Amino acid sequence: MSHSRRGLLFVLSSPSGAGKTTITRRLLADDPALSMSVSVTTRPPRDGEVDGRDYHFIDKPAFDELVATRALLEYAQVFEHWYGTPIAPVEATLGAGRDMVFDVDWQGAQQVRRRLPDHFVSVFVLPPSMTELHDRLRRRAKDSEKTVLARMAKAVDEVSHYDEYDYVIVNDEIERAVADVKSIFVAERLKRVRQTWLAAFVAKLLGPS
Amino acid sequence: MSHSRRGLLFVLSSPSGAGKTTITRRLLADDPALSMSVSVTTRPPRDGEVDGRDYHFIDKPAFDELVATRALLEYAQVFEHWYGTPIAPVEATLGAGRDMVFDVDWQGAQQVRRRLPDHFVSVFVLPPSMTELHDRLRRRAKDSEKTVLARMAKAVDEVSHYDEYDYVIVNDEIERAVADVKSIFVAERLKRVRQTWLAAFVAKLLGPS
Repeated sequence: MSHSRRGLLFVLSSPSGAGKTTITRRLLADDPALSMSVSVTTRPPRDGEVDGRDYHFIDKPAFDELVATRALLEYAQVFEHWYGTPIAPVEATLGAGRDMVFDVDWQGAQQVRRRLPDHFVSVFVLPPSMTELHDRLRRRAKDSEKTVLARMAKAVDEVSHYDEYDYVIVNDEIERAVADVKSIFVAERLKRVRQTWLAAFVAKLLGPS
Repeated sequence: MSHSRRGLLFVLSSPSGAGKTTITRRLLADDPALSMSVSVTTRPPRDGEVDGRDYHFIDKPAFDELVATRALLEYAQVFEHWYGTPIAPVEATLGAGRDMVFDVDWQGAQQVRRRLPDHFVSVFVLPPSMTELHDRLRRRAKDSEKTVLARMAKAVDEVSHYDEYDYVIVNDEIERAVADVKSIFVAERLKRVRQTWLAAFVAKLLGPS
Protein backbone atom coordinates (compact mmCIF):
# COMPACT_ATOMS: atom_id res chain seq x y z
CA MET A 1 0.00 0.00 0.00
CA SER A 2 1.51 3.31 -1.06
CA HIS A 3 0.38 6.63 0.35
CA SER A 4 1.51 10.18 -0.21
CA ARG A 5 3.62 11.65 2.57
CA ARG A 6 6.53 14.00 3.07
CA GLY A 7 9.91 12.29 2.84
CA LEU A 8 12.11 11.60 5.87
CA LEU A 9 15.61 12.98 6.44
CA PHE A 10 17.96 10.27 7.62
CA VAL A 11 21.17 11.75 8.96
CA LEU A 12 24.08 9.32 9.34
CA SER A 13 27.18 10.42 11.25
CA SER A 14 30.30 8.60 12.36
CA PRO A 15 34.01 9.18 12.66
CA SER A 16 35.88 8.65 9.39
CA GLY A 17 36.68 4.95 9.03
CA ALA A 18 33.73 3.63 11.06
CA GLY A 19 31.99 2.35 7.94
CA LYS A 20 29.45 5.07 7.27
CA THR A 21 30.31 5.46 3.58
CA THR A 22 29.98 1.71 2.96
CA ILE A 23 26.65 1.64 4.81
CA THR A 24 25.34 4.67 2.87
CA ARG A 25 26.34 3.15 -0.49
CA ARG A 26 24.57 -0.11 0.36
CA LEU A 27 21.42 1.70 1.47
CA LEU A 28 21.26 3.68 -1.77
CA ALA A 29 21.97 0.60 -3.91
CA ASP A 30 19.30 -1.53 -2.18
CA ASP A 31 16.53 1.07 -1.94
CA PRO A 32 15.77 2.90 -5.21
CA ALA A 33 13.28 5.16 -3.37
CA LEU A 34 16.11 6.58 -1.25
CA SER A 35 18.37 9.33 -2.51
CA MET A 36 21.33 11.38 -1.36
CA SER A 37 21.98 15.02 -2.06
CA VAL A 38 25.03 16.12 -4.00
CA SER A 39 27.09 18.49 -1.86
CA VAL A 40 28.98 21.58 -2.94
CA THR A 41 32.65 21.78 -1.97
CA THR A 42 35.63 24.08 -2.38
CA ARG A 43 37.97 21.06 -2.35
CA PRO A 44 39.52 20.15 -5.73
CA PRO A 45 38.21 16.95 -7.38
CA ARG A 46 40.09 13.72 -6.60
CA ASP A 47 40.91 11.17 -9.32
CA GLY A 48 37.73 9.65 -10.67
CA GLU A 49 35.36 12.17 -9.07
CA VAL A 50 32.79 13.65 -11.42
CA ASP A 51 31.46 17.21 -11.04
CA GLY A 52 27.68 17.12 -10.45
CA ARG A 53 27.73 13.46 -9.45
CA ASP A 54 30.15 13.22 -6.51
CA TYR A 55 30.16 16.93 -5.69
CA HIS A 56 29.46 20.28 -7.24
CA PHE A 57 33.00 21.72 -7.23
CA ILE A 58 32.84 25.48 -6.68
CA ASP A 59 35.23 28.23 -5.56
CA LYS A 60 35.19 30.02 -2.20
CA PRO A 61 33.36 33.21 -3.39
CA ALA A 62 30.57 31.06 -4.90
CA PHE A 63 30.41 29.09 -1.63
CA ASP A 64 30.20 32.30 0.44
CA GLU A 65 27.36 33.52 -1.79
CA LEU A 66 25.38 30.31 -1.06
CA VAL A 67 25.93 30.80 2.70
CA ALA A 68 24.92 34.48 2.52
CA THR A 69 21.65 33.69 0.68
CA ARG A 70 20.80 30.83 3.09
CA ALA A 71 20.83 28.45 0.12
CA LEU A 72 22.66 25.77 2.15
CA LEU A 73 20.86 23.38 4.51
CA GLU A 74 24.14 22.83 6.36
CA TYR A 75 27.79 23.60 5.80
CA ALA A 76 31.10 23.02 7.53
CA GLN A 77 34.82 23.42 7.18
CA VAL A 78 36.67 20.09 7.31
CA PHE A 79 40.40 20.65 7.55
CA GLU A 80 41.14 23.31 4.92
CA HIS A 81 38.04 22.88 2.72
CA TRP A 82 34.36 23.85 2.86
CA TYR A 83 31.42 21.53 2.25
CA GLY A 84 27.69 22.25 2.10
CA THR A 85 24.28 20.85 1.12
CA PRO A 86 22.10 22.97 -1.21
CA ILE A 87 18.61 23.17 0.32
CA ALA A 88 16.45 23.57 -2.83
CA PRO A 89 16.86 20.02 -4.23
CA VAL A 90 16.40 18.60 -0.72
CA GLU A 91 13.06 20.42 -0.28
CA ALA A 92 11.92 19.25 -3.72
CA THR A 93 12.81 15.60 -3.01
CA LEU A 94 11.18 15.52 0.46
CA GLY A 95 8.11 17.32 -0.87
CA ALA A 96 7.73 14.61 -3.50
CA GLY A 97 7.58 12.04 -0.67
CA ARG A 98 11.04 10.60 -1.23
CA ASP A 99 13.36 9.91 1.72
CA MET A 100 16.92 11.20 1.74
CA VAL A 101 20.09 10.16 3.49
CA PHE A 102 22.68 12.72 4.66
CA ASP A 103 26.29 11.87 5.32
CA VAL A 104 27.28 14.74 7.64
CA ASP A 105 29.24 15.27 10.86
CA TRP A 106 27.72 16.31 14.20
CA GLN A 107 27.81 19.99 13.25
CA GLY A 108 25.97 19.24 10.00
CA ALA A 109 23.45 17.10 11.89
CA GLN A 110 22.71 19.98 14.27
CA GLN A 111 22.21 22.39 11.38
CA VAL A 112 19.91 20.03 9.46
CA ARG A 113 17.82 19.44 12.60
CA ARG A 114 17.54 23.21 13.20
CA ARG A 115 16.58 23.99 9.59
CA LEU A 116 14.30 21.00 8.84
CA PRO A 117 13.23 19.59 12.24
CA ASP A 118 10.20 17.68 10.92
CA HIS A 119 10.73 14.07 9.95
CA PHE A 120 14.37 14.29 11.00
CA VAL A 121 15.95 10.96 12.06
CA SER A 122 19.58 10.66 13.15
CA VAL A 123 21.83 7.61 13.40
CA PHE A 124 25.36 7.50 14.81
CA VAL A 125 27.73 4.70 13.80
CA LEU A 126 30.40 3.87 16.40
CA PRO A 127 33.53 1.83 15.69
CA PRO A 128 34.01 -1.24 17.94
CA SER A 129 37.28 0.33 19.17
CA MET A 130 39.54 3.32 18.43
CA THR A 131 42.45 0.95 17.72
CA GLU A 132 40.33 -0.69 15.03
CA LEU A 133 39.51 2.79 13.65
CA HIS A 134 43.18 3.78 13.64
CA ASP A 135 44.05 0.57 11.76
CA ARG A 136 41.34 1.21 9.16
CA LEU A 137 42.57 4.77 8.58
CA ARG A 138 46.19 3.59 8.25
CA ARG A 139 45.19 0.94 5.70
CA ARG A 140 43.93 3.73 3.42
CA ALA A 141 47.21 4.01 1.54
CA LYS A 142 46.57 7.56 0.30
CA ASP A 143 46.62 9.09 3.75
CA SER A 144 49.87 10.30 5.31
CA GLU A 145 50.54 9.66 9.02
CA LYS A 146 49.84 13.37 9.66
CA THR A 147 46.44 13.06 7.98
CA VAL A 148 45.72 9.89 9.98
CA LEU A 149 46.49 11.71 13.25
CA ALA A 150 44.31 14.69 12.26
CA ARG A 151 41.48 12.28 11.39
CA MET A 152 41.90 10.46 14.71
CA ALA A 153 41.61 13.79 16.57
CA LYS A 154 38.46 14.60 14.59
CA ALA A 155 37.15 11.07 15.27
CA VAL A 156 37.45 11.60 19.04
CA ASP A 157 35.56 14.91 18.71
CA GLU A 158 32.90 13.24 16.55
CA VAL A 159 32.39 10.27 18.91
CA SER A 160 31.95 12.62 21.86
CA HIS A 161 28.70 13.82 20.21
CA TYR A 162 27.10 10.36 19.91
CA ASP A 163 24.57 11.35 22.57
CA GLU A 164 22.84 13.87 20.28
CA TYR A 165 21.54 11.09 17.99
CA ASP A 166 18.26 9.15 17.97
CA TYR A 167 19.89 5.79 17.24
CA VAL A 168 23.37 4.38 17.87
CA ILE A 169 24.90 1.39 16.08
CA VAL A 170 28.21 -0.26 16.95
CA ASN A 171 29.70 -1.38 13.62
CA ASP A 172 31.21 -4.73 14.67
CA GLU A 173 30.18 -6.38 11.44
CA ILE A 174 29.20 -4.46 8.30
CA GLU A 175 26.33 -6.72 7.14
CA ARG A 176 24.71 -6.47 10.55
CA ALA A 177 25.20 -2.69 10.60
CA VAL A 178 23.59 -2.30 7.14
CA ALA A 179 20.63 -4.47 8.22
CA ASP A 180 20.29 -2.43 11.43
CA VAL A 181 20.11 0.88 9.54
CA LYS A 182 17.57 -0.61 7.13
CA SER A 183 15.40 -1.69 10.09
CA ILE A 184 15.57 1.84 11.50
CA PHE A 185 14.39 3.26 8.15
CA VAL A 186 11.51 0.77 7.93
CA ALA A 187 10.44 1.43 11.53
CA GLU A 188 10.60 5.21 11.19
CA ARG A 189 8.31 5.05 8.16
CA LEU A 190 5.85 2.95 10.22
CA LYS A 191 5.58 5.46 13.07
CA ARG A 192 1.98 6.58 13.33
CA VAL A 193 2.92 10.27 13.32
CA ARG A 194 4.76 9.81 9.99
CA GLN A 195 1.79 8.20 8.24
CA THR A 196 -0.24 11.34 7.72
CA TRP A 197 -2.71 9.46 5.48
CA LEU A 198 -3.84 7.14 8.34
CA ALA A 199 -6.67 9.31 9.69
CA ALA A 200 -8.36 9.32 6.26
CA PHE A 201 -7.67 5.59 5.82
CA VAL A 202 -9.29 4.70 9.18
CA ALA A 203 -12.23 7.03 8.54
CA LYS A 204 -12.85 5.15 5.28
CA LEU A 205 -12.32 1.78 7.06
CA LEU A 206 -14.98 2.57 9.66
CA GLY A 207 -17.31 4.62 7.45
CA PRO A 208 -20.32 3.37 5.45
CA SER A 209 -19.12 1.03 2.71
CA MET B 1 27.98 -7.27 20.97
CA SER B 2 25.71 -8.04 23.91
CA HIS B 3 25.15 -5.62 26.76
CA SER B 4 22.99 -5.73 29.85
CA ARG B 5 19.84 -3.66 29.68
CA ARG B 6 16.26 -3.76 30.87
CA GLY B 7 13.92 -5.57 28.47
CA LEU B 8 11.38 -3.79 26.28
CA LEU B 9 7.61 -4.24 26.41
CA PHE B 10 6.18 -4.64 22.93
CA VAL B 11 2.42 -4.27 22.97
CA LEU B 12 0.61 -5.52 19.86
CA SER B 13 -3.06 -4.69 19.41
CA SER B 14 -5.48 -5.20 16.56
CA PRO B 15 -9.08 -6.17 15.99
CA SER B 16 -9.68 -9.92 16.08
CA GLY B 17 -8.96 -11.35 12.62
CA ALA B 18 -6.40 -8.73 11.56
CA GLY B 19 -3.54 -11.21 11.88
CA LYS B 20 -2.08 -10.27 15.26
CA THR B 21 -1.99 -13.85 16.58
CA THR B 22 -0.17 -15.11 13.47
CA ILE B 23 2.33 -12.23 13.70
CA THR B 24 2.93 -12.86 17.43
CA ARG B 25 3.50 -16.59 16.88
CA ARG B 26 6.02 -15.90 14.11
CA LEU B 27 7.89 -13.33 16.25
CA LEU B 28 8.18 -15.77 19.15
CA ALA B 29 9.24 -18.65 16.86
CA ASP B 30 11.93 -16.58 15.09
CA ASP B 31 13.38 -14.77 18.12
CA PRO B 32 14.28 -17.04 21.04
CA ALA B 33 15.17 -13.98 23.17
CA LEU B 34 11.57 -12.79 22.98
CA SER B 35 8.90 -14.16 25.28
CA MET B 36 5.23 -13.74 25.98
CA SER B 37 3.53 -13.81 29.32
CA VAL B 38 0.94 -16.46 30.15
CA SER B 39 -2.35 -14.75 31.04
CA VAL B 40 -4.87 -15.73 33.67
CA THR B 41 -8.47 -16.16 32.57
CA THR B 42 -11.84 -17.11 33.98
CA ARG B 43 -12.84 -18.61 30.60
CA PRO B 44 -12.98 -22.44 30.47
CA PRO B 45 -10.18 -24.15 28.48
CA ARG B 46 -10.90 -24.83 24.80
CA ASP B 47 -9.98 -28.15 23.17
CA GLY B 48 -6.20 -28.54 23.10
CA GLU B 49 -5.46 -25.66 25.48
CA VAL B 50 -3.06 -26.54 28.29
CA ASP B 51 -3.26 -24.94 31.74
CA GLY B 52 -0.05 -23.03 32.48
CA ARG B 53 0.99 -22.93 28.81
CA ASP B 54 -1.90 -21.22 26.97
CA TYR B 55 -3.48 -19.66 30.05
CA HIS B 56 -3.66 -20.08 33.79
CA PHE B 57 -7.32 -21.06 34.14
CA ILE B 58 -8.70 -19.69 37.40
CA ASP B 59 -12.13 -18.96 38.88
CA LYS B 60 -13.66 -15.51 39.42
CA PRO B 61 -12.86 -15.22 43.18
CA ALA B 62 -9.18 -16.02 42.49
CA PHE B 63 -9.20 -13.42 39.67
CA ASP B 64 -10.75 -10.78 41.96
CA GLU B 65 -8.06 -11.50 44.55
CA LEU B 66 -5.32 -10.80 41.93
CA VAL B 67 -7.02 -7.50 41.01
CA ALA B 68 -7.40 -6.48 44.67
CA THR B 69 -3.71 -7.13 45.42
CA ARG B 70 -2.56 -5.26 42.26
CA ALA B 71 -0.92 -8.48 41.09
CA LEU B 72 -2.13 -7.91 37.51
CA LEU B 73 -0.32 -5.64 35.05
CA GLU B 74 -3.54 -5.27 33.06
CA TYR B 75 -6.91 -6.96 32.98
CA ALA B 76 -10.13 -6.72 30.99
CA GLN B 77 -13.48 -8.29 30.48
CA VAL B 78 -13.96 -9.59 26.92
CA PHE B 79 -17.56 -10.61 26.34
CA GLU B 80 -18.46 -12.69 29.41
CA HIS B 81 -14.93 -13.64 30.57
CA TRP B 82 -12.07 -11.96 32.38
CA TYR B 83 -8.42 -11.94 31.28
CA GLY B 84 -5.32 -10.57 32.99
CA THR B 85 -1.50 -10.50 32.95
CA PRO B 86 0.30 -11.36 36.23
CA ILE B 87 2.92 -8.66 36.83
CA ALA B 88 5.57 -10.63 38.80
CA PRO B 89 6.84 -12.84 35.92
CA VAL B 90 6.82 -9.78 33.61
CA GLU B 91 9.01 -7.77 36.01
CA ALA B 92 11.39 -10.72 36.37
CA THR B 93 11.73 -11.20 32.59
CA LEU B 94 12.27 -7.48 31.83
CA GLY B 95 14.71 -7.18 34.73
CA ALA B 96 16.75 -10.02 33.22
CA GLY B 97 17.05 -7.95 30.02
CA ARG B 98 14.63 -10.04 27.96
CA ASP B 99 12.02 -8.37 25.77
CA MET B 100 8.37 -9.37 25.98
CA VAL B 101 5.44 -9.17 23.61
CA PHE B 102 1.90 -8.50 24.85
CA ASP B 103 -1.18 -9.41 22.89
CA VAL B 104 -3.73 -7.05 24.47
CA ASP B 105 -6.55 -4.74 23.37
CA TRP B 106 -6.50 -0.93 23.64
CA GLN B 107 -7.64 -1.02 27.25
CA GLY B 108 -4.84 -3.45 28.11
CA ALA B 109 -2.34 -1.27 26.24
CA GLN B 110 -3.38 1.77 28.28
CA GLN B 111 -3.02 -0.14 31.56
CA VAL B 112 0.42 -1.55 30.64
CA ARG B 113 1.64 1.94 29.64
CA ARG B 114 0.35 3.39 32.93
CA ARG B 115 1.90 0.64 35.08
CA LEU B 116 5.22 0.15 33.23
CA PRO B 117 5.77 3.31 31.13
CA ASP B 118 9.51 2.80 30.66
CA HIS B 119 10.60 0.93 27.56
CA PHE B 120 6.99 0.62 26.43
CA VAL B 121 6.51 0.27 22.66
CA SER B 122 3.10 -0.13 21.04
CA VAL B 123 2.14 -1.39 17.60
CA PHE B 124 -1.34 -1.41 16.09
CA VAL B 125 -2.18 -3.82 13.24
CA LEU B 126 -4.95 -2.61 10.93
CA PRO B 127 -6.83 -4.83 8.48
CA PRO B 128 -6.77 -3.64 4.83
CA SER B 129 -10.59 -3.38 4.98
CA MET B 130 -13.47 -4.21 7.32
CA THR B 131 -15.01 -6.44 4.61
CA GLU B 132 -11.79 -8.48 4.59
CA LEU B 133 -11.96 -8.66 8.40
CA HIS B 134 -15.60 -9.79 8.31
CA ASP B 135 -14.69 -12.50 5.77
CA ARG B 136 -11.81 -13.74 7.93
CA LEU B 137 -14.03 -13.94 11.01
CA ARG B 138 -16.75 -15.80 9.07
CA ARG B 139 -14.21 -18.33 7.77
CA ARG B 140 -13.49 -19.35 11.37
CA ALA B 141 -16.00 -22.18 11.34
CA LYS B 142 -16.38 -22.30 15.14
CA ASP B 143 -17.91 -18.85 15.40
CA SER B 144 -21.66 -18.35 15.10
CA GLU B 145 -23.03 -15.37 13.15
CA LYS B 146 -23.94 -13.76 16.48
CA THR B 147 -20.32 -14.10 17.67
CA VAL B 148 -19.08 -12.71 14.34
CA LEU B 149 -21.32 -9.64 14.74
CA ALA B 150 -20.16 -9.09 18.33
CA ARG B 151 -16.54 -9.38 17.19
CA MET B 152 -17.15 -6.91 14.35
CA ALA B 153 -18.59 -4.39 16.84
CA LYS B 154 -15.54 -4.87 19.06
CA ALA B 155 -13.28 -4.53 16.00
CA VAL B 156 -14.77 -1.12 15.18
CA ASP B 157 -14.18 -0.01 18.79
CA GLU B 158 -10.62 -1.36 18.68
CA VAL B 159 -9.73 0.32 15.37
CA SER B 160 -11.01 3.68 16.66
CA HIS B 161 -8.09 3.63 19.15
CA TYR B 162 -5.32 3.18 16.55
CA ASP B 163 -4.14 6.74 17.25
CA GLU B 164 -2.91 5.83 20.76
CA TYR B 165 -0.11 3.63 19.33
CA ASP B 166 3.52 4.39 18.45
CA TYR B 167 3.48 2.40 15.21
CA VAL B 168 0.72 1.40 12.81
CA ILE B 169 0.93 -1.42 10.26
CA VAL B 170 -1.67 -2.22 7.60
CA ASN B 171 -1.69 -6.02 7.27
CA ASP B 172 -2.11 -6.36 3.50
CA GLU B 173 0.29 -9.27 3.34
CA ILE B 174 1.31 -11.34 6.34
CA GLU B 175 5.02 -11.84 5.45
CA ARG B 176 5.45 -8.10 5.01
CA ALA B 177 3.63 -7.40 8.27
CA VAL B 178 5.86 -9.86 10.19
CA ALA B 179 8.99 -8.28 8.67
CA ASP B 180 7.68 -4.80 9.56
CA VAL B 181 7.15 -5.72 13.22
CA LYS B 182 10.62 -7.30 13.34
CA SER B 183 12.14 -4.07 11.98
CA ILE B 184 10.32 -2.08 14.67
CA PHE B 185 11.76 -4.38 17.37
CA VAL B 186 15.30 -4.08 15.96
CA ALA B 187 15.04 -0.28 15.67
CA GLU B 188 13.62 0.19 19.16
CA ARG B 189 16.54 -1.77 20.62
CA LEU B 190 18.93 0.54 18.72
CA LYS B 191 17.49 3.75 20.15
CA ARG B 192 20.22 5.54 22.05
CA VAL B 193 18.05 6.00 25.14
CA ARG B 194 17.47 2.22 25.31
CA GLN B 195 21.17 1.36 25.21
CA THR B 196 21.99 2.29 28.78
CA TRP B 197 25.47 0.74 28.48
CA LEU B 198 26.56 3.24 25.76
CA ALA B 199 27.94 5.96 28.05
CA ALA B 200 30.36 3.47 29.63
CA PHE B 201 31.22 2.00 26.22
CA VAL B 202 32.07 5.44 24.75
CA ALA B 203 34.03 6.44 27.87
CA LYS B 204 36.14 3.29 27.42
CA LEU B 205 36.40 3.97 23.65
CA LEU B 206 37.79 7.47 24.25
CA GLY B 207 39.72 6.76 27.45
CA PRO B 208 43.39 5.77 27.79
CA SER B 209 43.89 2.34 26.26
